[in-house]
Amino acid sequence: MMRLIRRLLIGRPLHNREMSHERLPKWKALAIFSSDALSSVGYGPEMIAMTLAVPGLLAYGYFGPVAIAIVLLLAIVTISYVQVARANPGGGGSYSVAIKNLGELPALTAAASLFADYTLTVAVSVSSGTAALISAFPSLLPHEVAIDLIVLLMILTIINMRGVRESSNIFAAPTYLFIAGIFALIATGFWQVFSGSDPLIPAAAAARQPLSWGILFLCLRAFASGCSSMTGVEAISNGVPMFKEPEVHNAATTTYWMSSILGFMLLGISFLMIHYHLLPEENTTLLSSLAENIFGRNVIYYYIQITTMLVLYLAANTAYNGLPPLLSILARDGYMPRYLGFRGERLSFSNGILLLSLFAATLIVVFAGSVEHLISLYAIGVFLSFTIAQTGMVIHWRQVQDAGWHWRAAINGFGALITGTVVLVIAITKFMFGAWIVLIFIPLMISIFRKIKHHYADMADQLHLPMPDGASLQIAPRGKNIVVMPVASPTIIVAETLKYAQAISDQIYAVHIATDEESARKVRDKWLKWNPEKVELVTIYSPYRIVVQPLIRYIEKLEMKKRPEDFITVLIPEFETLRWWHRLLHNQTGWILRTLLILKENVVVSTVPYHLKK
Amino acid sequence: MMRLIRRLLIGRPLHNREMSHERLPKWKALAIFSSDALSSVGYGPEMIAMTLAVPGLLAYGYFGPVAIAIVLLLAIVTISYVQVARANPGGGGSYSVAIKNLGELPALTAAASLFADYTLTVAVSVSSGTAALISAFPSLLPHEVAIDLIVLLMILTIINMRGVRESSNIFAAPTYLFIAGIFALIATGFWQVFSGSDPLIPAAAAARQPLSWGILFLCLRAFASGCSSMTGVEAISNGVPMFKEPEVHNAATTTYWMSSILGFMLLGISFLMIHYHLLPEENTTLLSSLAENIFGRNVIYYYIQITTMLVLYLAANTAYNGLPPLLSILARDGYMPRYLGFRGERLSFSNGILLLSLFAATLIVVFAGSVEHLISLYAIGVFLSFTIAQTGMVIHWRQVQDAGWHWRAAINGFGALITGTVVLVIAITKFMFGAWIVLIFIPLMISIFRKIKHHYADMADQLHLPMPDGASLQIAPRGKNIVVMPVASPTIIVAETLKYAQAISDQIYAVHIATDEESARKVRDKWLKWNPEKVELVTIYSPYRIVVQPLIRYIEKLEMKKRPEDFITVLIPEFETLRWWHRLLHNQTGWILRTLLILKENVVVSTVPYHLKK
Repeated sequence: MMRLIRRLLIGRPLHNREMSHERLPKWKALAIFSSDALSSVGYGPEMIAMTLAVPGLLAYGYFGPVAIAIVLLLAIVTISYVQVARANPGGGGSYSVAIKNLGELPALTAAASLFADYTLTVAVSVSSGTAALISAFPSLLPHEVAIDLIVLLMILTIINMRGVRESSNIFAAPTYLFIAGIFALIATGFWQVFSGSDPLIPAAAAARQPLSWGILFLCLRAFASGCSSMTGVEAISNGVPMFKEPEVHNAATTTYWMSSILGFMLLGISFLMIHYHLLPEENTTLLSSLAENIFGRNVIYYYIQITTMLVLYLAANTAYNGLPPLLSILARDGYMPRYLGFRGERLSFSNGILLLSLFAATLIVVFAGSVEHLISLYAIGVFLSFTIAQTGMVIHWRQVQDAGWHWRAAINGFGALITGTVVLVIAITKFMFGAWIVLIFIPLMISIFRKIKHHYADMADQLHLPMPDGASLQIAPRGKNIVVMPVASPTIIVAETLKYAQAISDQIYAVHIATDEESARKVRDKWLKWNPEKVELVTIYSPYRIVVQPLIRYIEKLEMKKRPEDFITVLIPEFETLRWWHRLLHNQTGWILRTLLILKENVVVSTVPYHLKK
Repeated sequence: MMRLIRRLLIGRPLHNREMSHERLPKWKALAIFSSDALSSVGYGPEMIAMTLAVPGLLAYGYFGPVAIAIVLLLAIVTISYVQVARANPGGGGSYSVAIKNLGELPALTAAASLFADYTLTVAVSVSSGTAALISAFPSLLPHEVAIDLIVLLMILTIINMRGVRESSNIFAAPTYLFIAGIFALIATGFWQVFSGSDPLIPAAAAARQPLSWGILFLCLRAFASGCSSMTGVEAISNGVPMFKEPEVHNAATTTYWMSSILGFMLLGISFLMIHYHLLPEENTTLLSSLAENIFGRNVIYYYIQITTMLVLYLAANTAYNGLPPLLSILARDGYMPRYLGFRGERLSFSNGILLLSLFAATLIVVFAGSVEHLISLYAIGVFLSFTIAQTGMVIHWRQVQDAGWHWRAAINGFGALITGTVVLVIAITKFMFGAWIVLIFIPLMISIFRKIKHHYADMADQLHLPMPDGASLQIAPRGKNIVVMPVASPTIIVAETLKYAQAISDQIYAVHIATDEESARKVRDKWLKWNPEKVELVTIYSPYRIVVQPLIRYIEKLEMKKRPEDFITVLIPEFETLRWWHRLLHNQTGWILRTLLILKENVVVSTVPYHLKK
C-alpha cells in the first residue's frame, strides 16, 4: 500500500546508469538558471518602496536613485561572476571557490550563507508567488499559508524527489512567458507615459526631503532591501558544466543576457512605479498594482500575475537544484551527515530535498507566509557569499598569474569590496529588522559543521580496524555464550524463547524474580512440572517488589565469573501485540532492561519475536 | 544521581512485611474520611448562588429553598450509606457492591463514574484550595495554575508516592481546625444578625420572582450545582475495615457525625450568605466574602482562608486513598492494565497515583484552574455511583432476607430513587454546561474496560502452555542458529560482532550490499585481507541504491532453505554514540531493518553494543 503510493508519487527506482549528463543550449540555460534572478523583480522594487514610504511620503523621491544604485551594483556583480565562471569551468559555487583558495573558515561561512539563502529562496519565492496569485484573486487570501505549503510540499518536493530533469522544456516556458509579460507591461507603460498628457514624473512622486543623516540611513536601508533583487545572479556560474561547448563562453554570454534583462526590467518597473506614485498596499503586490494601473483588470493583467506566480515558484525550484548538491559536497567533506550525500531511489539527493522542504515550510509557517519579514533575512547571506566568492577569486588569480591576471584580480577585488560594503550596509541598516538572525545563524552553522567534522574524525579513529600483517596474525580464543532468560511464569512465549536459547547456547539460566513467596512457589511448581529440557530455574526473592535491579545484579555476578572472551545474552521473552494500544496494557520491564543493559559491553539483549494473533 | 533524588523524594524501598494494618479511632477517622465532604462547603453554596444570580437578582430569593433541599438529600444519602457500611464490613465502594449484586455493566458504570469523580475531586479540590488562598492574597492571582500544579505534582503526588500513612495525626489537624473556624464564623455571624438592628433577612435578599417554568428549571440547575457539596459522603462506607472494633457501629456513628456537621455548616453558611445578600465575584470565593463581611480582614479571616485551603488540599489527598486502590481492584479483575495493581517500592500503588496526578493536572491546565467549569462535570458521576450503590443494596437485602430486610431495602430503594432522580435532574439541567462530557466519558470508559478485559482473555488463551502428561512428553528437535551479519565495511565493530557471531553459531554469512561496483571491490579486498576467521563475505549488488530490501530478500531466501526448527539471527554491527546528537549523523538502517524484521517469526534481530568513547 505505502509502496504503491510511493511509486505513484515519485516513480520507479532508477538504475545508477540512468544518471543524466545532458548539456543545455544557451536559450534553455537562460530560462532555467535565471528564473531566480529575474523573478526577484516580483518583490525587489516593492521592498524599496516599502522602506521609503514609511516616514511620510517625501522620502519616496529617493526611489529612483536607489533603484539606479542597485542596477549599478548588479553590473559589478555580473562582471565579477563571469570571472568566477571562467575560473571554475567545473562549476561549484562560493563554497568550492573558497575551500580551494581561502581555507576552511571562509568556505564554511559561504556554506552557511548559502544554506540560509537557499532555504530563504524557497520560502520567499513560494510566498511571493502566492502573493502574486492573491493579488489577482483576493478571495484566496485566507488560504495563503495553505497554498504556500501545498506548492512547497505537494508540488516542489515531489517533483524534486522524482528528480525530473531540470533540462525539460516545461521549465523553460514560464521564464520566457514572464519576460514577455513584463516587457509588454514596460512597453505599454512607457507608451502611456510619453503619449499621455501627464508630466513625465509627477511632482508628488518626485518630491524629496532634503538629504539628512536620517534620510540617508533610510535610503541605505531601502538599498539593502532592494538588493534582494539580485539573488540568483550567481546561479549560472555554479552550473557551467551543464552548458554546451564552449561552456565558459556560453555561460558568460548567458550571464550577460540575464543581467541585461534583469537590469532593464528593474529600471523600467521602478520608473513606472515612481511615475504612477504607487505605494505598497496590504495583500496586493506592487507589481500587481502597476499592472492594474496600466492594463486595468483585463486578460493581460491576469497573464502577468499568473506568469509572475509561475516564475516565482520556478525560482523556488532552482534552490532544489542548488542546496541538495551543496549539502552532498559538504557531506562528502564531512561537514554534514553522510546520508545527505547519498542519491535516493530516483538518483536525486532525496534527504537533502526533504531537509530543504522541511526548513522552508517551517519558515513559512513561523512567518505566516509574510514575505517582507523573510526578505529581511535574505540579502545579507547572499552578499556575504558574493563577497567570499570574489575574495576567493582574487587569491585564485594571484596564484594563476596568467596574462592579464592583474586586471581580473582587480575586477574581482572591486567586486569583493563593493559587495562587502553592501554586507556591512545591510547588517547595520537592517540589524533590528532580522539581519541579526542571520548573524547568529551563520556562526552557529559554522560551529555545527565543525562539530560534525570532528565527530566523523573521532569515529574513523575508533572504528579503524588494524590490518593484520603476517607476524601478528593470531586468532583470539573463541568465546562461549551464556544465556540469561527472565521468566515471569511459564508460558508459550517462554517455551519458544527457550528453543532459541538452546540454539545459541549450552549454558542457560532461567531466572524468576519473585515479589512474594507464594507466587515464587507457584512458578517453581509449574516450571518443574513442565520443563521439557531440564533447564534450571533460578528464583530470586525480591521483597521490595523491584524486578529489574535484582536481575541486573544477577547478570553482573555472571559477568564477573565468566572468561573475558565469553558473552552473556539476555533473552527477554516478549510478544508483539496485535494492536498498538495493547502494548500499553503490559509492563515495560523488557524495555527498561534493554535500556539499562545497553550500557554493558559483552552483554547482548535480544528478543525472539512472538506475535499475538488476536 | 537520579537514584539519590528518588531516595530523597520518596524514601527507601519498603519490605513487604512493612505493610500497615493500623486501626483508626473515631475522632481520627472522622477527620481523615470527611475532609472531602466537609471541604465542599468551600464551593457548594457558591455554586448555588452563581446559578441563581445569573438572570437578574430576583431568582436569588430561591437560595434558601435550594439549600434546604440539598440538606434533606444529604440526610437521605447518609442513611443509605450507613446501610452500605453495615452490609459491606469488608469495605469497598459502589464498584464492589455492584459487581457482587448487579453484574458487570452497573459495576463498570460505577467504576467509570468513580474514576471521573476521583479525578475531578483532585482537580476541583486543589483549584478551590488555591482559590481560597488567592481570595486572601489577590496578588497571587497570576500564579493560580502554577500553584495548583505545585500542590498537585510536588506535594500531593510525592506524599502519596512515599505512601505516608493516612492515619498520621498531621492529616487530622486541618479538618478540626477548619471545623472550628467555620463554626466560629457561623456563631459570630448569627450573633451579629440577631443582635444587630438589621431585619433578619433583608428584603433585597428575600425578594423572589414568581415561580415560572423558567425559574423552576433554574432552581433545579442550582440544586444540581449545589449537589457538589455532597461529594465524599460515601468515603466512610468504603473504609469500614480501617475502624476500631466494633467497626460497623463506629463507622455508622462517624457517618452520622460527619453528615450532621456538614448539614449544619451548609445551612449556617447559606443563611448568612442570604442575609448579607452576597453575590459571586470574580477571583474571590463567596466564603471569603462572607468571612470578610463578618470579621473584616483580621487574623480570624486569614485563619479561615488558610484552614479552608488546607482542608481542600487534604480533600484532594483523599482521592489518592480512593482511586489507586480502586484501580488495583479493576486491574486484578482484568479491566485495567495489570501494572496498576502492583505496589511500588513504598508499598503504595505508585502507577495509579501517577495516573491520577497526570489526569488531574491535565484537567487543571485545560480549564486553567477555573473551578466552576470543573464542578459542572462533577456532581453527575457522584450521584450515578450513589444510585448504583443503593440499587445494589436493594438486591443485597433481598438476597440476605434477614430480620427487617424489608425496611432496609426500602430505605436503600428510596435512596436509589432520590439519587437517581438527582442524576436525571443534573443530566438535564446541566447538559449544556459540561454534563455531556461525563455522559460521553462513562460509556467510553466502559468500552475501554471491556476491551482491556477482552485483550487479557485473548492473551491468556494464546500464552497458555499445555502441560505435558507422561505420554505426550516429547522433545522437539533442537534447531540450529544461522547468523546473517550486514557489513558496510570492515571496522572494529564488525570484528567485535563477528566474535559474538562465532559464539552463537557455526554458520555465519557476512553480507555486503554494494551500491556501486567500485565500493564493492574495495570492501571485498579489505575483507579478504583482514578476515581472521575465514568467514565468507556475500556481496549483493544493488544498483538502485536500496540497502534494506536486498538484505531482507536474502534473509527470506535463507528462511526458505532452513529447517523449520532453525533460527536466523540478524546481527547488526552498530555502535552507541557518546552524545545523543551524534546519532543524527548516522543513518538509521539498523533501526529500519529491526522494524521490518520484527514481523518475521524465527528471525531474531540483535546488536552487540559497542560504545564510542569520544
